[in-house]
Amino acid sequence: MNTSMIGYTLGRVLKLEGYFMIPSALTAILYGEDAVWAFLISMALCMGSGHLMARKRPENRVFYVREGFVSVALSWIGLSVMGGIPFLLTGVLTHPVDALFETVSGFTTTGASVIADVEAIPKSVLFWRSFTHWIGGMGVLVFLLTILPMDGGSYMNLMKAESPGPQVSRLVSSAKSTAKILYGIYIVMTLIQVAFMLAGRIPLFDALTLTFGTAGTGGFGIKNDSMAGYSTYIQVVVTIFMILFGVNFNVYFFLLMRKAKQALQMEEVWWYFIIIAFSILTITCNIRGFYGSTQESLLQAAFQVGSIITTTGYSSCDFNLWPELSRTILVLLMLIGACAGSTGGGIKVSRLILLVKTVHKELHQFLHPRSIRKIQIDGKPVPHEVVRMTNVYMVVYILIFAGSVLLLSLDELDLITNFTAVAATFNNIGPGLNIVGPSANFSVFSTLSKLILSFDMLAGRLEIFPLLLLFVKDTWKKF
Amino acid sequence: MNTSMIGYTLGRVLKLEGYFMIPSALTAILYGEDAVWAFLISMALCMGSGHLMARKRPENRVFYVREGFVSVALSWIGLSVMGGIPFLLTGVLTHPVDALFETVSGFTTTGASVIADVEAIPKSVLFWRSFTHWIGGMGVLVFLLTILPMDGGSYMNLMKAESPGPQVSRLVSSAKSTAKILYGIYIVMTLIQVAFMLAGRIPLFDALTLTFGTAGTGGFGIKNDSMAGYSTYIQVVVTIFMILFGVNFNVYFFLLMRKAKQALQMEEVWWYFIIIAFSILTITCNIRGFYGSTQESLLQAAFQVGSIITTTGYSSCDFNLWPELSRTILVLLMLIGACAGSTGGGIKVSRLILLVKTVHKELHQFLHPRSIRKIQIDGKPVPHEVVRMTNVYMVVYILIFAGSVLLLSLDELDLITNFTAVAATFNNIGPGLNIVGPSANFSVFSTLSKLILSFDMLAGRLEIFPLLLLFVKDTWKKF
Repeated sequence: MNTSMIGYTLGRVLKLEGYFMIPSALTAILYGEDAVWAFLISMALCMGSGHLMARKRPENRVFYVREGFVSVALSWIGLSVMGGIPFLLTGVLTHPVDALFETVSGFTTTGASVIADVEAIPKSVLFWRSFTHWIGGMGVLVFLLTILPMDGGSYMNLMKAESPGPQVSRLVSSAKSTAKILYGIYIVMTLIQVAFMLAGRIPLFDALTLTFGTAGTGGFGIKNDSMAGYSTYIQVVVTIFMILFGVNFNVYFFLLMRKAKQALQMEEVWWYFIIIAFSILTITCNIRGFYGSTQESLLQAAFQVGSIITTTGYSSCDFNLWPELSRTILVLLMLIGACAGSTGGGIKVSRLILLVKTVHKELHQFLHPRSIRKIQIDGKPVPHEVVRMTNVYMVVYILIFAGSVLLLSLDELDLITNFTAVAATFNNIGPGLNIVGPSANFSVFSTLSKLILSFDMLAGRLEIFPLLLLFVKDTWKKF
Repeated sequence: MNTSMIGYTLGRVLKLEGYFMIPSALTAILYGEDAVWAFLISMALCMGSGHLMARKRPENRVFYVREGFVSVALSWIGLSVMGGIPFLLTGVLTHPVDALFETVSGFTTTGASVIADVEAIPKSVLFWRSFTHWIGGMGVLVFLLTILPMDGGSYMNLMKAESPGPQVSRLVSSAKSTAKILYGIYIVMTLIQVAFMLAGRIPLFDALTLTFGTAGTGGFGIKNDSMAGYSTYIQVVVTIFMILFGVNFNVYFFLLMRKAKQALQMEEVWWYFIIIAFSILTITCNIRGFYGSTQESLLQAAFQVGSIITTTGYSSCDFNLWPELSRTILVLLMLIGACAGSTGGGIKVSRLILLVKTVHKELHQFLHPRSIRKIQIDGKPVPHEVVRMTNVYMVVYILIFAGSVLLLSLDELDLITNFTAVAATFNNIGPGLNIVGPSANFSVFSTLSKLILSFDMLAGRLEIFPLLLLFVKDTWKKF
């Protein structure tokens, strides 16, 4: 284990986090808030500790899968611990575990909050909260890759560990260029959405923070009623962009390269849109009685479906009150999640496709025991290892899910609350049903439960294995 | 596809079902019930149709995996359709889907009922209901194997398809002898339990029917309050025998052969008892406030844990009222289920062990990419195919589970009811929580939902694949 290289990476990440706090500090200055001191102190702490750890570039820059996974896991934990300091220094939150929960929720683009009255807290803190979504959406390590000097170790292992989905395809030959292209697309799409939001005549602050939440598919609101108070225009813009940020970014890359045919060939994206269309139509019919017109039902259904399947978690109404069919569809969408290679969370559409194809293949094998057939996606055979890892992923997913629900039940809240709280955090969505429904928050849970849910959020964002490796003894052996 | 051989097998099964109705007809005569006619007509229908189909032994007696699976699936559907006739003829149930649901629930040893007042129906019908548990517990096809002339085809494929668990081990070299040994153990254990029950001074009728429900891990009660009205002695006897019938029968075989060492080596059985002990202790502490003494809590906890993990589904109290931790543990036990090679249902402890070992192996592979390690159970390597099928099993399990919950939500009952109704039927348990809790029944569901739950019960008992194969086009191709 190359610990010095891991320490170096962690140091760079913390330094970077210090820089990321600059916009929040500026916001504090702009609005004349005392919070500016909280941010300056936090920046000093991040940069200081980061500088200490990254002072000297290690000589041995070898970076295997193991180092990649451990670096990513530790960096995200480090980011979350340090990112919570502004909440504590400004007094917005008083308990360290609350601050950790809120920051983990931000970076993992979950959007589950322990703050009941978000309108009462300083604007700069709101800005920081939403900005963590934007940072976490595309990944901190991926960002680091765009600026790190690229010699020595195989940095692709960092990207593999941080990017969501069963397979990470290099768009171009180098990891650095791939990271740059992804961040380029991300930034341009963010700017386009901000422009659309401003066209709806909302303040720049609202446009920026809400866009951060949409782009990262995070979902922290800046109003107590999330998005319900905004105009229909703004809700439509957010709906469209949520769905766009949940698309596999490879599509945009192919479109940029004028390879429309390749973009259209992506099965995952087709299924993503089919699931969305089916869910919106079914829910629209199901909730028609709740709203004045079919148009209104359609709008609410589209917003909620887009928000849940992309794991954003904004709400435009209290879907907890919807009929059971709609609620069940939303719970299933929570589990499905967005496309691989997007900023969204969940199990990912591509994993589902792989799983269904595996089942189909096995049934075929029963009937034709001697046939050898490889599973194909987008017309290309999927490596055996990816299929196996996808199966194993599902198994660990279920085990962690069940374990979390069991531990949460110690709080004696009802089963739906516990089940959907785990679903909403593990899949990085935000709101669940009942006590953690869209009009409520996570402050009801005990400290232990908050820690478990924080673990689930990190495990969900990093797709379990990096975090799990930290608990395996062999990981820490030197050899 | 050797359809004539499948038809022949189905015919033999239906004829056998006719014979299985004799004890119920005798019960009707004994109690002077009109239901005797219902049973005589049903017997005639079973034997007549069975005779027509099995009139001539087919010349081509080749029996591949495919034929085995399809035979088992069709036989179970045939058994359930014909087995429902007495319910309709006696007027106990009036809707054919209700009769199907009740019979499927019986044969699959689920024990979920649509009959609200079981004390009002004829004793002979109660006997038939409980006897279906006993028949379904060890398997009808396995029974048939003990009497079928064994030449030609590989009958092991029948047993593979009907016996629960990821791996079916032949105890002795021939399938016929294995089936005979298993049924021998089953019958002897049943007789021992009946003796213990009679020692508790309950009527022979109660002793027989309750033992059938215990031995098959079925759970149909003959009283409206299930087991709550019986003495502590009877409850203890039932608790112990439920747990014993959930043990992998190989253990009893090894003990008979005086191979105690091999019996003690079975990891699955160890874990089965560890899970039971852990659950009983936790629930006992959790529900202590609900009962007068720790002893009473322990008794209730043991009965309920035994009943749920073995997927029997008897209840000695309304555990729906227990605190959330206990309820959650019971829901998780519902999913785990008993040992492979027992009469119990669920995912099975051995599958769980395999899944956890797979995850462990994959984490190891991350750290030592070049190592090759085979998963071992009971000190023996597990074939790669079994591991793969176990993973695939979990995936199909989840897909069917999610689909069923979605379709059930059309009935607009609450999510816990739907979720636990699917869990309780798919795992062949019986009662769930809320509206389908232990003090309620399944009559609230629509006809569509009852059909879905019947499918789930059959899919759970036959471990999904035989039933799923019926829906694959290739299965029906001749080649």
